[in-house]
Amino acid sequence: MVRWQPGTRERLQEAALELFARRGYEQTTAAEIARSVGLTERTFFRHFSDKREVLFQGQDLLLDAFLDGMAAAPDDATPMELIGTALESVAAFFPGDRRDRSRLRQSVIDQHPALQERERHKLSTLATAIGDALRARGVPEPAATLAAESAITVFSVSFAQWIREGEERSIAEIERAVLSELRGLAGGVV
Amino acid sequence: MVRWQPGTRERLQEAALELFARRGYEQTTAAEIARSVGLTERTFFRHFSDKREVLFQGQDLLLDAFLDGMAAAPDDATPMELIGTALESVAAFFPGDRRDRSRLRQSVIDQHPALQERERHKLSTLATAIGDALRARGVPEPAATLAAESAITVFSVSFAQWIREGEERSIAEIERAVLSELRGLAGGVV
Repeated sequence: MVRWQPGTRERLQEAALELFARRGYEQTTAAEIARSVGLTERTFFRHFSDKREVLFQGQDLLLDAFLDGMAAAPDDATPMELIGTALESVAAFFPGDRRDRSRLRQSVIDQHPALQERERHKLSTLATAIGDALRARGVPEPAATLAAESAITVFSVSFAQWIREGEERSIAEIERAVLSELRGLAGGVV
Repeated sequence: MVRWQPGTRERLQEAALELFARRGYEQTTAAEIARSVGLTERTFFRHFSDKREVLFQGQDLLLDAFLDGMAAAPDDATPMELIGTALESVAAFFPGDRRDRSRLRQSVIDQHPALQERERHKLSTLATAIGDALRARGVPEPAATLAAESAITVFSVSFAQWIREGEERSIAEIERAVLSELRGLAGGVV
């Protein structure tokens, strides 16, 4: 049996989500997650520091997506244009076939205050890093912080809508609508 | 010696902040806080469930200030006008003579990740309650959530500026400037 193969991490993630959702997050151990896909606990810990991190391991990739989106924007882009390109870039991170998995993940998080706190921490860390990137591009305060926080707000609101039952639009489409709503709201049009 | 007197809670708060800042949050017990102002631990726990809550006990009053501000606005106020009146109302909560105490409190929080998490939780709870109040006034989604999150962002950015060394403007004045910056930013003026 070949134990090491491409996708080991992904298999562990799938298995973890499935067990968390079916048996409960607290009741599931790292060893059980590994065993359910024919791997050892040792292999699990080569990929994740603990079972909670299975749910948050995408955080760095998500940040990269935000930053790459901003890096690709023209030099003279306004803060809101930078937020727009960042959100477009992030949308690629959530293709349609990931929607069910995102729903499952959210349902696990919604049931555990400690995981909700970890999620808040993640979003707060993302906002800080986006603010840093905006400041590095010369955006002054408080515009940089306001734009960074707005990016995270638009992303969170869009993500929550994207995983709602019956929602069929892509996250990119939802983000554009929410960003436009924010612009109208703040600009006093709405 | 008269042990019960108006301001017992405030004396405990002052003493706690002073001890947290001078000796460290972890190193300070509820009993020591009480003793430092001639009270018993028992009296401390009549006012606060634990030493952490000394730092967060104003949360409900802060929420009331946001909600009262919105309640006082005319029926046809736009979401951003509601946010404006809420922020004005909240400013009354932070008179100039509270600035040093707010600085001290923030310096304690900045040193402890668990307190930072409690602060994030507080702000997230405030945003949810403000969103609920906006929805109750008939503001649809996603405008209600966007406006509520924006209110908390403007408040947080303004508060951070208000307690910066050398800052002399009132929090009301800073809030107006930050809100106007957000409007310009989102509206595409900046």
